[in-house]
Amino acid sequence: MRVGVAGFGTVGMGVAKLLLDPENRFGFVKNRPELAAVADIDWETEREVTLPKTVRREDDAVALAKAEDIDAVVELIGGTGAAFDVIMAAVDAGKPVVTANKALLAERGREIFAPAREKGVSIGFEASVCGGIPLLRSIRAGLAADRIESFKGILNGTCNFILSRMYRDAAGYKSALTLAQEQGYAEADPTLDVSGTDSAHKLVLLAGLAFGAMPSMKDVDVEGIDGLDSRDVVYGRDLGYVTKLIASGRRRGAGAMELSVHPTLLPAAHPLAAVSGAYNAVWVDSDAVGTTMYYGPGAGMMPTASAVVSDLLDVASGSAMIEFERLGFIGAEPAQTVSLSSTDSRFYMRFTVKDEFGVLGKIAGMLGKHRVSIASVVQKASSDPTSVPIVMLTHTAREKDAATALARIDEEEFVTAPTAVLRIDDEENLL
Amino acid sequence: MRVGVAGFGTVGMGVAKLLLDPENRFGFVKNRPELAAVADIDWETEREVTLPKTVRREDDAVALAKAEDIDAVVELIGGTGAAFDVIMAAVDAGKPVVTANKALLAERGREIFAPAREKGVSIGFEASVCGGIPLLRSIRAGLAADRIESFKGILNGTCNFILSRMYRDAAGYKSALTLAQEQGYAEADPTLDVSGTDSAHKLVLLAGLAFGAMPSMKDVDVEGIDGLDSRDVVYGRDLGYVTKLIASGRRRGAGAMELSVHPTLLPAAHPLAAVSGAYNAVWVDSDAVGTTMYYGPGAGMMPTASAVVSDLLDVASGSAMIEFERLGFIGAEPAQTVSLSSTDSRFYMRFTVKDEFGVLGKIAGMLGKHRVSIASVVQKASSDPTSVPIVMLTHTAREKDAATALARIDEEEFVTAPTAVLRIDDEENLL
Repeated sequence: MRVGVAGFGTVGMGVAKLLLDPENRFGFVKNRPELAAVADIDWETEREVTLPKTVRREDDAVALAKAEDIDAVVELIGGTGAAFDVIMAAVDAGKPVVTANKALLAERGREIFAPAREKGVSIGFEASVCGGIPLLRSIRAGLAADRIESFKGILNGTCNFILSRMYRDAAGYKSALTLAQEQGYAEADPTLDVSGTDSAHKLVLLAGLAFGAMPSMKDVDVEGIDGLDSRDVVYGRDLGYVTKLIASGRRRGAGAMELSVHPTLLPAAHPLAAVSGAYNAVWVDSDAVGTTMYYGPGAGMMPTASAVVSDLLDVASGSAMIEFERLGFIGAEPAQTVSLSSTDSRFYMRFTVKDEFGVLGKIAGMLGKHRVSIASVVQKASSDPTSVPIVMLTHTAREKDAATALARIDEEEFVTAPTAVLRIDDEENLL
Repeated sequence: MRVGVAGFGTVGMGVAKLLLDPENRFGFVKNRPELAAVADIDWETEREVTLPKTVRREDDAVALAKAEDIDAVVELIGGTGAAFDVIMAAVDAGKPVVTANKALLAERGREIFAPAREKGVSIGFEASVCGGIPLLRSIRAGLAADRIESFKGILNGTCNFILSRMYRDAAGYKSALTLAQEQGYAEADPTLDVSGTDSAHKLVLLAGLAFGAMPSMKDVDVEGIDGLDSRDVVYGRDLGYVTKLIASGRRRGAGAMELSVHPTLLPAAHPLAAVSGAYNAVWVDSDAVGTTMYYGPGAGMMPTASAVVSDLLDVASGSAMIEFERLGFIGAEPAQTVSLSSTDSRFYMRFTVKDEFGVLGKIAGMLGKHRVSIASVVQKASSDPTSVPIVMLTHTAREKDAATALARIDEEEFVTAPTAVLRIDDEENLL
């Protein structure tokens, strides 16, 4: 099987390494994938992988996708523009595609999947969610007999690296981000990661697989870690919680789902709380199996390349199209989503108030009036009597009740800074 | 696809439940699996699942496997006798088989896999290892581009339940076992589980998949938890370690591997240490992806049934045979194994000695003479001066050096009970 790779960046180099490995890595596959051509707009930059003369170099990725001697196309250009054209050229030419492009599939997936199915070609995208973890095939095929009720996970390694440093070293957000950049875990412009958008892209794809209907990006309630105050990570830790950026999907009746990305406090004993550094993990609840969890590197050259090549091996062996036809969300109606304001959660709230008699009682009263009940209160020390932190953990409350109460409280004269609020997820009955 | 189920016990009932579910659970599969017949030798016992009249009841499972109206056979009889006959009858008749029978495959797998491949029928066995965790397909297909270097895991829920109680409640082995029996986590005769044999069965199958050559049961160095003293679990805990029954496989050069099942001390921060109760988890190290971990329920009616049905769905969709052909170990030479005596480990040792001057020095001296170097020593309080526990943790030493030293030490007059020894695995550089 002659493979054309579009995009010779980090992952492209990893794919080339695996396909060019002199060891007979894929001895079990009859129709062995071979690297035939690579397309990139930049052939000047020196790279750590040298292509042998037998591999053709192209400038035009669309031409590569159309080329007669290419049997399967790997799209690693990224973004939602040129990458789309390359994939559609391959689909039009009846060639199977493998891609790691979560942004493209989350935002324009319906434009790609439906024509691919019509043409009878598969789109493999294992590498697009949680890199090296064989997560999509576990959900699609491993849990095929199950009805998935909900899942939640750490889907972005950059954010998890930063949060791990804020937790372990009580580092501020900015210094933790700078460290992540120095160590190669964050881009120079980290917006896509720290804003939660990248997690939301992956969440949309996971929800499509898990619930059989594809949501759109605007259906996801997204909050990143860029507004997170390190004090809340530390106060949370003091109370036995680890702060993680959790992407969560929950089935809500037929064809409906609730999707969110939020910094969330998890009990320290929760298996997801132990996932540190740039690792990813996803916790899945399904009706027959119960709870399963999948853990591993969510990004990086070789983990992502391995996922790409595992998809190529499915194409080579003939199972890719069979699996692609099993995807329930293709051709299904778009998912309905449920607004978070109608759902319940426990909350962590940090009020910043003047050190005056009766303030605590006033806050408690206003929360109670909106049906938000307090589970515990800690007043933190402060050298500034006009700015005293009070941390409250609530019992389960309606999302919209909590929001209304906080909006009301923040108007009070004794409140000197906006209240910080984080969700608490301790619903699991851990052993 | 008309399915015949041989064995109407717990898992058989679970499979029937899923296949008879009135909801259209498998809408995505064209060749929908339907429960056509069930065979069992006992139709007297009342069961919680009632078969509709449309499902034929048979007494003879071999006849069921041969019956003309059965397209696929599920073997859930267990054991290595009648189950073998049923599977071979199906293979001879050219019918795909799905089984949860780890003992049979580990002990007689070569007799089954080779003729099945010759006949062109698949043997699905996802349910045989770690029940509801889609582990085998993750290793076989998800990590298909990788070379797996090693894996280790908690493969037996009964042992893990018992060890969790010994750890958390400082319970003795016997009371923890009794509790496991009361709560349905252990059989009346728990030998197969607590002796480590069940873990070894699963280890053999995992090793075949991971390393591409099938070992035999005699190649596995097995130690169960039935000889474990609860003091060692508690002393280990005091030192920051959790005791788990770890099944471990390690690649050692071409076609060679090292396989063991041992109670092992893991650092409390290790993700496997957090796996408690009847859960299973497997930690895999492979060359491109790095570390992945898979966690979930290792047994039980519905988790195991879900794995069986996921295999049936692969048969129905046509991917089962493609995947079966990818299994490298079928037709490969049997694996060579490496004896543990030539490998290295850290050790936990509990000596029981008379409270005499100079004993510690003598032990240290004898260990040193055999190249076993001590990392730390704790002398435990004892009301009996003829029986004082001394706990030592060693640095990495040769397995056979440690064994020789301990045999020598236990001959000394000041040693009043055989020395307890456990392996310590803290090789991971955890973040």
